[in-house]
Amino acid sequence: MSRLFMFEKPLGMRDTLPELHDAKESVRSSIEMEMKRWGFQFIETPALEYYETVGMASAIQDQQLFKLLDQQGHTLVLRPDMTAPIARIAASKLYKEQIPLRLAYSANVYRAQQREGGRPAEFEQIGVECIGDDSVSADGEMIALAISSLKKAGLEPFQLSVGHVGFVNELFLQILGNEERARELTKFLYEKNYVGYREHVHSLPLSSIDSQRLLAFLDLRGGPEVIGKALELVENGKGRDALDELKLLWEIIEDFGESSRIKFDLTIVSHMSYYTGILFEVYAGMIGFAIGNGGRYDKLLEKFGKTTGATGFAIRLDRLLESLGDLEPPEPVTCILFSPERRKEAYQMAAEKRENHERIVLQDIRAVRNLDACSDAFANVVFLVGKEGTQ
Amino acid sequence: MSRLFMFEKPLGMRDTLPELHDAKESVRSSIEMEMKRWGFQFIETPALEYYETVGMASAIQDQQLFKLLDQQGHTLVLRPDMTAPIARIAASKLYKEQIPLRLAYSANVYRAQQREGGRPAEFEQIGVECIGDDSVSADGEMIALAISSLKKAGLEPFQLSVGHVGFVNELFLQILGNEERARELTKFLYEKNYVGYREHVHSLPLSSIDSQRLLAFLDLRGGPEVIGKALELVENGKGRDALDELKLLWEIIEDFGESSRIKFDLTIVSHMSYYTGILFEVYAGMIGFAIGNGGRYDKLLEKFGKTTGATGFAIRLDRLLESLGDLEPPEPVTCILFSPERRKEAYQMAAEKRENHERIVLQDIRAVRNLDACSDAFANVVFLVGKEGTQ
Repeated sequence: MSRLFMFEKPLGMRDTLPELHDAKESVRSSIEMEMKRWGFQFIETPALEYYETVGMASAIQDQQLFKLLDQQGHTLVLRPDMTAPIARIAASKLYKEQIPLRLAYSANVYRAQQREGGRPAEFEQIGVECIGDDSVSADGEMIALAISSLKKAGLEPFQLSVGHVGFVNELFLQILGNEERARELTKFLYEKNYVGYREHVHSLPLSSIDSQRLLAFLDLRGGPEVIGKALELVENGKGRDALDELKLLWEIIEDFGESSRIKFDLTIVSHMSYYTGILFEVYAGMIGFAIGNGGRYDKLLEKFGKTTGATGFAIRLDRLLESLGDLEPPEPVTCILFSPERRKEAYQMAAEKRENHERIVLQDIRAVRNLDACSDAFANVVFLVGKEGTQ
Repeated sequence: MSRLFMFEKPLGMRDTLPELHDAKESVRSSIEMEMKRWGFQFIETPALEYYETVGMASAIQDQQLFKLLDQQGHTLVLRPDMTAPIARIAASKLYKEQIPLRLAYSANVYRAQQREGGRPAEFEQIGVECIGDDSVSADGEMIALAISSLKKAGLEPFQLSVGHVGFVNELFLQILGNEERARELTKFLYEKNYVGYREHVHSLPLSSIDSQRLLAFLDLRGGPEVIGKALELVENGKGRDALDELKLLWEIIEDFGESSRIKFDLTIVSHMSYYTGILFEVYAGMIGFAIGNGGRYDKLLEKFGKTTGATGFAIRLDRLLESLGDLEPPEPVTCILFSPERRKEAYQMAAEKRENHERIVLQDIRAVRNLDACSDAFANVVFLVGKEGTQ
């Protein structure tokens, strides 16, 4: 192969070396344990799905999909998220009894990158989906479980921002009159470009009252008092229903004893087009991007022939690890260097120490070219070399 | 989307439902723990690699590779094995100090299937690689660790067959005169088609002594006495060196106290062209295919610019689970059904039980359409409905 290319990896692809691997495993395991305690059942889905089913349902932009043709000529995609595959399984196999399903996963997802900008093209999400439950209780459970999982992972401090995409859609549609205009304005929210949002509002042919409503909308962030302010901006029933849901959600999170963790931010929207109701995002410390996010997606199951509500969330393991900061030091490893005469003695010593939960490398000393480097690489080195009985 | 296609998955792709997921997790975790106790460090590599680097080094047939083009026009492959990616990392980043590296992984690998024949196109391997150690001690360590890992996973009975691809290559080359003829005969061994092998030998223009040697080769299976029989068949030094390695290997496995687990089978070869020396395969009970396999691959690192020996093995998790038989029953889950008046009480009860390691589902009773099915789905159901204090 060409030497220049020899060690290269595709754009956005990463190796995970031992220290980070062990940290990931430890955090993943804490979160999985907590999700299981909340009665969620873990499943796995294939890395490859048909573009026509999961690929199109996933709501990830087409240019971010890794696509390939299989030998039968169908277009396949590397799963860009886990919500759509789980909706497929729930609709086809699991959601038969019409009782709410609680499913969980930890899995890599794939998003093609256009250029090397530090964004990974493969990253791990740990998440849950509650399928078949229309109640705000289920939305509250998602938020409470997200909080509980992150506490178990050792994250501190962190905060959740909670919004409602149904409220945004209603308000914008009501003021702007059609979906295209609403979508255009929503785009600024998605990019969190509030300057652009304001300029765009001023450029629209609106009454000054409507302009004011759209600008006042940007201030709908804070505690439960936000609901009162938001009520002043909407006129119709649907918008008020959304705010009633948020009010109830606050009470539910209070009953979970976690309302100090959340604040409302009604400007939250998502690039995932399948969301329909309550949305939330998790932020921690200095990290500028969301560590996790979730929300209600009552329309996705319809794409798989079932009409039922669903809500869920996912945590990005890479971002969580970044927020957690310094990794724990690796567990110490002892190296037993042996020569052939004392091989059996070395094996027995290793077996005893391993039974005692120690990490032991057995190394034939004749295969070591650099003894100093070997000593440096281990916490302890034991020499079993030469005649038996010497050490 | 078309309704016919709605629930379909690509050829050879599988969903893993909760019961199997938990069994996989438990077996994976026992084996990972044992590999760590032997001082192996776990790493992860990307699902996608360049065809030009890892794809071509991997020794999996081209038609079994899932290939795609990235947006820069390079051909990518879904990794068909983990040995080649680990060789890439070892050569580029980790094997600097020239001391043996012990790396481990548990990862899905991908092999495209031509038709639906029950073979998975995605399956998980747990394995280790010992890089930079030319000694037979390292080969013995691989076999001893494979045995120890499978014992920890609860597998019983199982056996390992041990061969040496260097011996086969030497013997065939010596008798048949050139590599093409040797390769042709080796193909029958790979397919374990011994009838075809015999017919092919009879069809060759060989002296009756050479024919007899090739037929006697098929009987080289059994305990250490096989080495003596094999010595009668080879003439040159290379063939004898291979047999000396196997003799030493037997002594090493005896020192590990595990020689009752292994037998020689010198007819073992591999479709992985990078193997150069000792090879082994794991068989258990009634399962007709190998649960795991491993061996020495001293030439693979050269493809990444480093000249050093390496040996390793991988266990196929799906086949191991099949050999283990019945899955453990899932852990019991209690469902607390609550109405809004008693929400807070339900949350507190759930929190206490979860702290006590119980698995608890919290369910708003208004979201349950079918109460009987709900009761059937859980080990216990607690009703917190109506006025406080009633149950």
